[in-house]
Amino acid sequence: MFHHVKDLQFNARVSRPDPRFANLLLEQFGGENGELAAAMQYFTQAFGAKVPYPDKYDMLMDIATEEFSHLEIVGATIQMLLKGVNGELKDAADNSEIMQVMDGKAAKESIIHQALSANPQFGIITGGGVTPRNSQGIPWCASYINSNGDLTVDLRSNLASESRAKLVYEHLMKFTDDPYIHETLSFLMTREVAHYKMFEAALNDIQPNFPPGVLAADPRFTQQAFNLSDGATVRGPWNEGEMPDMGKDWNYIADPVAYVKETQGLTKTDKALEKELKETEKLDKEMSKVKSAEVKDAEPEGVAQWSTY
Amino acid sequence: MFHHVKDLQFNARVSRPDPRFANLLLEQFGGENGELAAAMQYFTQAFGAKVPYPDKYDMLMDIATEEFSHLEIVGATIQMLLKGVNGELKDAADNSEIMQVMDGKAAKESIIHQALSANPQFGIITGGGVTPRNSQGIPWCASYINSNGDLTVDLRSNLASESRAKLVYEHLMKFTDDPYIHETLSFLMTREVAHYKMFEAALNDIQPNFPPGVLAADPRFTQQAFNLSDGATVRGPWNEGEMPDMGKDWNYIADPVAYVKETQGLTKTDKALEKELKETEKLDKEMSKVKSAEVKDAEPEGVAQWSTY
Amino acid sequence: MFHHVKDLQFNARVSRPDPRFANLLLEQFGGENGELAAAMQYFTQAFGAKVPYPDKYDMLMDIATEEFSHLEIVGATIQMLLKGVNGELKDAADNSEIMQVMDGKAAKESIIHQALSANPQFGIITGGGVTPRNSQGIPWCASYINSNGDLTVDLRSNLASESRAKLVYEHLMKFTDDPYIHETLSFLMTREVAHYKMFEAALNDIQPNFPPGVLAADPRFTQQAFNLSDGATVRGPWNEGEMPDMGKDWNYIADPVAYVKETQGLTKTDKALEKELKETEKLDKEMSKVKSAEVKDAEPEGVAQWSTY
Amino acid sequence: MFHHVKDLQFNARVSRPDPRFANLLLEQFGGENGELAAAMQYFTQAFGAKVPYPDKYDMLMDIATEEFSHLEIVGATIQMLLKGVNGELKDAADNSEIMQVMDGKAAKESIIHQALSANPQFGIITGGGVTPRNSQGIPWCASYINSNGDLTVDLRSNLASESRAKLVYEHLMKFTDDPYIHETLSFLMTREVAHYKMFEAALNDIQPNFPPGVLAADPRFTQQAFNLSDGATVRGPWNEGEMPDMGKDWNYIADPVAYVKETQGLTKTDKALEKELKETEKLDKEMSKVKSAEVKDAEPEGVAQWSTY
Amino acid sequence: MFHHVKDLQFNARVSRPDPRFANLLLEQFGGENGELAAAMQYFTQAFGAKVPYPDKYDMLMDIATEEFSHLEIVGATIQMLLKGVNGELKDAADNSEIMQVMDGKAAKESIIHQALSANPQFGIITGGGVTPRNSQGIPWCASYINSNGDLTVDLRSNLASESRAKLVYEHLMKFTDDPYIHETLSFLMTREVAHYKMFEAALNDIQPNFPPGVLAADPRFTQQAFNLSDGATVRGPWNEGEMPDMGKDWNYIADPVAYVKETQGLTKTDKALEKELKETEKLDKEMSKVKSAEVKDAEPEGVAQWSTY
Amino acid sequence: MFHHVKDLQFNARVSRPDPRFANLLLEQFGGENGELAAAMQYFTQAFGAKVPYPDKYDMLMDIATEEFSHLEIVGATIQMLLKGVNGELKDAADNSEIMQVMDGKAAKESIIHQALSANPQFGIITGGGVTPRNSQGIPWCASYINSNGDLTVDLRSNLASESRAKLVYEHLMKFTDDPYIHETLSFLMTREVAHYKMFEAALNDIQPNFPPGVLAADPRFTQQAFNLSDGATVRGPWNEGEMPDMGKDWNYIADPVAYVKETQGLTKTDKALEKELKETEKLDKEMSKVKSAEVKDAEPEGVAQWSTY
Repeated sequence: MFHHVKDLQFNARVSRPDPRFANLLLEQFGGENGELAAAMQYFTQAFGAKVPYPDKYDMLMDIATEEFSHLEIVGATIQMLLKGVNGELKDAADNSEIMQVMDGKAAKESIIHQALSANPQFGIITGGGVTPRNSQGIPWCASYINSNGDLTVDLRSNLASESRAKLVYEHLMKFTDDPYIHETLSFLMTREVAHYKMFEAALNDIQPNFPPGVLAADPRFTQQAFNLSDGATVRGPWNEGEMPDMGKDWNYIADPVAYVKETQGLTKTDKALEKELKETEKLDKEMSKVKSAEVKDAEPEGVAQWSTY
Repeated sequence: MFHHVKDLQFNARVSRPDPRFANLLLEQFGGENGELAAAMQYFTQAFGAKVPYPDKYDMLMDIATEEFSHLEIVGATIQMLLKGVNGELKDAADNSEIMQVMDGKAAKESIIHQALSANPQFGIITGGGVTPRNSQGIPWCASYINSNGDLTVDLRSNLASESRAKLVYEHLMKFTDDPYIHETLSFLMTREVAHYKMFEAALNDIQPNFPPGVLAADPRFTQQAFNLSDGATVRGPWNEGEMPDMGKDWNYIADPVAYVKETQGLTKTDKALEKELKETEKLDKEMSKVKSAEVKDAEPEGVAQWSTY
Repeated sequence: MFHHVKDLQFNARVSRPDPRFANLLLEQFGGENGELAAAMQYFTQAFGAKVPYPDKYDMLMDIATEEFSHLEIVGATIQMLLKGVNGELKDAADNSEIMQVMDGKAAKESIIHQALSANPQFGIITGGGVTPRNSQGIPWCASYINSNGDLTVDLRSNLASESRAKLVYEHLMKFTDDPYIHETLSFLMTREVAHYKMFEAALNDIQPNFPPGVLAADPRFTQQAFNLSDGATVRGPWNEGEMPDMGKDWNYIADPVAYVKETQGLTKTDKALEKELKETEKLDKEMSKVKSAEVKDAEPEGVAQWSTY
Repeated sequence: MFHHVKDLQFNARVSRPDPRFANLLLEQFGGENGELAAAMQYFTQAFGAKVPYPDKYDMLMDIATEEFSHLEIVGATIQMLLKGVNGELKDAADNSEIMQVMDGKAAKESIIHQALSANPQFGIITGGGVTPRNSQGIPWCASYINSNGDLTVDLRSNLASESRAKLVYEHLMKFTDDPYIHETLSFLMTREVAHYKMFEAALNDIQPNFPPGVLAADPRFTQQAFNLSDGATVRGPWNEGEMPDMGKDWNYIADPVAYVKETQGLTKTDKALEKELKETEKLDKEMSKVKSAEVKDAEPEGVAQWSTY
Repeated sequence: MFHHVKDLQFNARVSRPDPRFANLLLEQFGGENGELAAAMQYFTQAFGAKVPYPDKYDMLMDIATEEFSHLEIVGATIQMLLKGVNGELKDAADNSEIMQVMDGKAAKESIIHQALSANPQFGIITGGGVTPRNSQGIPWCASYINSNGDLTVDLRSNLASESRAKLVYEHLMKFTDDPYIHETLSFLMTREVAHYKMFEAALNDIQPNFPPGVLAADPRFTQQAFNLSDGATVRGPWNEGEMPDMGKDWNYIADPVAYVKETQGLTKTDKALEKELKETEKLDKEMSKVKSAEVKDAEPEGVAQWSTY
Repeated sequence: MFHHVKDLQFNARVSRPDPRFANLLLEQFGGENGELAAAMQYFTQAFGAKVPYPDKYDMLMDIATEEFSHLEIVGATIQMLLKGVNGELKDAADNSEIMQVMDGKAAKESIIHQALSANPQFGIITGGGVTPRNSQGIPWCASYINSNGDLTVDLRSNLASESRAKLVYEHLMKFTDDPYIHETLSFLMTREVAHYKMFEAALNDIQPNFPPGVLAADPRFTQQAFNLSDGATVRGPWNEGEMPDMGKDWNYIADPVAYVKETQGLTKTDKALEKELKETEKLDKEMSKVKSAEVKDAEPEGVAQWSTY
């Protein structure tokens, strides 16, 4: 179960209202790389991990809970940046000030006009409040998150998610000079780095963790680097020399169309690889036994109960 | 900030795996009337309420937190209903059992085959895990939630949300005879009723609360009930006699097309109503002052800070 | 079947083009709380109501038809607000005026430039026309509507929908000073209030109507108000004293974590409640009979026919 | 404004419940090629057409209204196909029959079990009712419709829409042998053909109508047919001989990569075409004047009013 | 398989950065009528066409490949229009220039400020890069494309798609005066016209191709034109005189409500039409044989293989 | 520009039709981790990389092109698995066989009945063809892809994408025993591993590449691991001992609520860290210069041109 503490994890403050930055910050509330996406991704992954890997479950739930706490920090900051909007809307019978602005006759912009320019829905739909949508009004969507029932995959998804979230905070910092917000964003950005390192440590803790999943790569198709993009040829460590940590070299296919025809759609392969394939299939069976036993053995017989009161 | 307690709010148990019911239950994890929708709706509404109505903020955050705790109960139940699926998938090199089932030669259905029939993504994408999607695979979407910056509106949205959530649990109970799950669903269904009553009490606590928002109804257009659906005429308390709590009677427009033409598109109205309109406009100005002051006066000057450590 | 009358239900007029307000008004054409959402919600609910509750069917169809008529009013107003845009686009070979504006050299803004600023799709996609999208370009989506096969639920969904629609019109009125548009918006806003009252009367007409659906609340879990949000404790009618219309008092759980552990996840409950539970189960069976008979008895045997010519 | 007549445009009847076919038929209620899509497409297009082309406006509104009437026929048929489901759900306290089915012990399938198999949401969310979603539960979405402010384009969009809708009805007829439903589907399918012919006649009534829009094709790039798909060469009237109604021949580019390089990305073109380009530009200016005048001249000065009471 | 050539099909150039036009141009990268939609529509249709209609398969694949090449041209142009944005974002520690702009103190607008105004995600999410979203940030969605397994339908969908794409390019040309971009847009617009003609020629090559699909129109319901829109009566070739290419006349139903009642929901039809219906049913059977044989006979027995190396 | 070669990159074959597996395989055609997602992700990332990092551009375009080629392989396989469906649908006038199946009277299931069970849209919408939707009918959506203008982020997104795609192929292999399909899936799965290694090599080639983006982590918030999940305490390399490759130790916060209050929302931090913060800020400025110069210096002055013919 969850418990809420009214104080924020970080002391978020705001110097002055700024509806435009509030709108940008929505990316981290309801956007594809934001805190809700992170929280829901780790929370969802945690369910499957609980029985077989209680230690990783604990870590996922810890970080999910921290991300929910960050979601609250972001929401609180947006709300403070929108100060004045709701009160102005409640003055429903009077629109003289807005109209002066719209006619270009006002001395200064009203806060509600700023809000409307930044995001029409601040004025019409959310009433000057927070909403789980991004900076262009797209509602948050669960297709932003990944949870695939395999920690060697899920943790890699998380490394990528943390990388993107970190970069978005970095970008956001360029668009405000409020020192209080800078501090909050610096905190949030840095925590993504810390989580990255936590997920990396957890992934290292699982051995072997490559390739992700259970099955090994098919040796007949592992080493080719296809040159499918005509023009100046570019070589680099991704298509020449040794493959990283694989004990194999890249096999650069300079003319893939000809190669495909020659090999009848890659079905005519080197005899040596056929032999290696056999070994791979043996390894696959062993790994299947190990990995499925790991899960099955942890599952209790009979009635299942989640908690231990 | 949030805090997580590993024990569930309710002692969710499951007698035996049932991937088909797991799929139905996804409606309350990632569906339009489910726990994530409830949690995010109240959580989002709470931000705007905090400064002007700290008591309602507390209530919204309490209930939001309980809904997150229910989300966890639903997720845990789904995960227990999927026991065996992930382990079976990890046995990646062997598909003989599934194929016997698919060929109609198996003595009994394997759990993974049941999972796949219920929801292809249980077998291919989530690896036998929970996902914030509904029973037909639609990812949860923030357009399910409503937060409009006015508690007389938001609380009514919540009464409707709780009503729908209650009904969905009622429907779900018809599709399982596992007594443990029945108990869990009975708990969850009943909490929706309890929340309904909490929101009702809070709405009553705000006076006046009708019409929702600030502006009064325009007296020229309030009383008409248009008979726009030809055929047998049906009369009832919604188009004859007194309007509920309005001190006015319904004005039944039997032939709307003629009426619209006569009144030149409703612009030629009763003189008596014009006078009432004036009074309404006066009332609107007063209410605007009251309601906007309520919000504005609560907002602090200068640097805004959310927490008080 | 439907019939269309070319005159609008209300005499919508517009003083001058205003693409920016046209964009805001899209919220009520293709937005989540707009007229299409209302029309489709009541229209969809009506199908299930027709056989068992022909009087409520008539009301739902009347209001749905009025909402389609309002959709037309909103669309017509948007189109009039966009006057000039389509003609300007048709002058396809000449973009000198726009470019003067874009370079800051124009004496005044062209209407097409205003349109593009308000909504890029007015200039590129809709050709200066109406579109069932909201003010930020999100296409209207049927997940905005609720229809759940139970009138005690559906009518509550409708009370909430009308409340939101009313508020959105109130907000919109702040952003225009065109007196004709004000009048149209005042009409539309007020009709939401009238519909609210129609739905309220219909809900009152169904007894009992609480809890929504068929099953009663489980007495073991009805009364608790969980204090899940740490910090200053706030008490109010939603967590102390009597529950509204329930003949029961709130049971305030000050420390939910401890309470959950003590009651082993709420499974150890007061004996008195067990007895009450038995009575509830009896009541549930009776209500099930009543409610299912109400529907089943109304359904004709044999070939079904919708109309009676 | 709209008016509703309780009798359906076609006398829809159903021999017996069939939740599975009900689910398929949802494609034409809430699917991408269904009646709501058609109705909303023509209704939306009509707004822009009203002032400059009142005759086409009338036709669009007539057909839109017929499509709304067809939407009602489809909804009514689905509802009749689901007879029994709602009543069964209302028998909320009893799930013995369903469970016998689920355990494989029932003599026959209950209607609610059939409903759930066809579409989980029939049992859990819609309560045995209609919903504007497709056969796989995707909510209807306004991105299904096209309205682009140019009748030579919009009418072509409509020809395509009618073609798809016709085909879907043809497909649906294969999946039911209920003669009443066949008759209804035959009516609906045929009306799509009739509408196709109405739109075709309207498009012919506009001259010139090709290319769609205002601007002529650029003569430098009109005639090439690029052979971009290697393998057996296929020639046909789409890449050899005369272009339909263009007075020009196809220019088959057998080796596009070489051709692009030779012409420096198609910027080195035939001198003759440069001259033709000049004439095209002149034509573009003339057409721009004609087409924009057509729209602008029809728009009234001053206050705009939609209706004429 | 695909092959990529680094040179663009057309020599796209850009005179100077213009983030605002970059945003508009996104419509043709990730919008509903853009190049990705076209490419994916024809590519998807091609699979079903390959075995029975290898010549049409070749054409669809050729055009799909050209559309992918156009997608690249559009993307390259957007990227060039955003020159400077990414470099500015990388200067992450310095936001002084942006803040001068935001405070109104800057001598000129920075490119990143322009980018943010045009599209917040250029600054926060895409890092000054291309994205398959439209001008309002809606992600590209496969519901934009149509592929229905019948070439007489698919080719008509394609005629409509090409018409819309052509019009969008025409609109876009109004919003830039960069001569290089004009040339690129003129090329892209014209190719839509060329593809239109290719699809038209292919449709003509299939005989009969009307009505789309297999089944003929039901003669009982083909000729009626329902006058469902009250007010001034408008007659035109779509509701009077001869139906185009049908050898039949329109049957104008001036009062549809009365007509429906008289004919008992159109079930009482002219005897002559009943006879014609019989002939139609005979024709349907013949066409079913022809059309299904056309597909079935082309499908090889036994193991299926796509390629012929 | 792209070029299409009719032979597939891999010789995809299918032993017999299997609409059910065809539906599962849609995950890799139009699903979130499928080939279209991969192709579009790398293709989109490539635009921004071209000018500053032409070598990485080449790699991204090579792999994108290979993924388009894989998309074709998957589509071809699905089409072959659906053999017979389209031909059966074309036999539009005859539904006797399907009805025998639906009534349980058929000797064997017809292929079209299998198709409909697997995916209703195979029978009604796609006409037995391929569609860019997933196994539950959700249309492919560009929110599946990530492109953020920073290669240290983008390449990590790609490592995660390849991991998920690999796992989905592994899962799919469990659900077919067709040896030809196994071989195709083994090829496709293995290529994901090969691409993973290519992206890993490219990421290693960029130094420094951590943290992703430009700015360093804020030393005040880097080391804390918050124990936010109550219950049994779990320690592991993610919250005790050394952080991977950081030269720092984890700082385990056992009681985060107390810690947050003590530090006044983490604003009272260790003096030593303040000093380290200064150094970090200096580093940030240096890195900003380096990284922005890297991009800016590569961008040509004046007219931009993408190709070099």
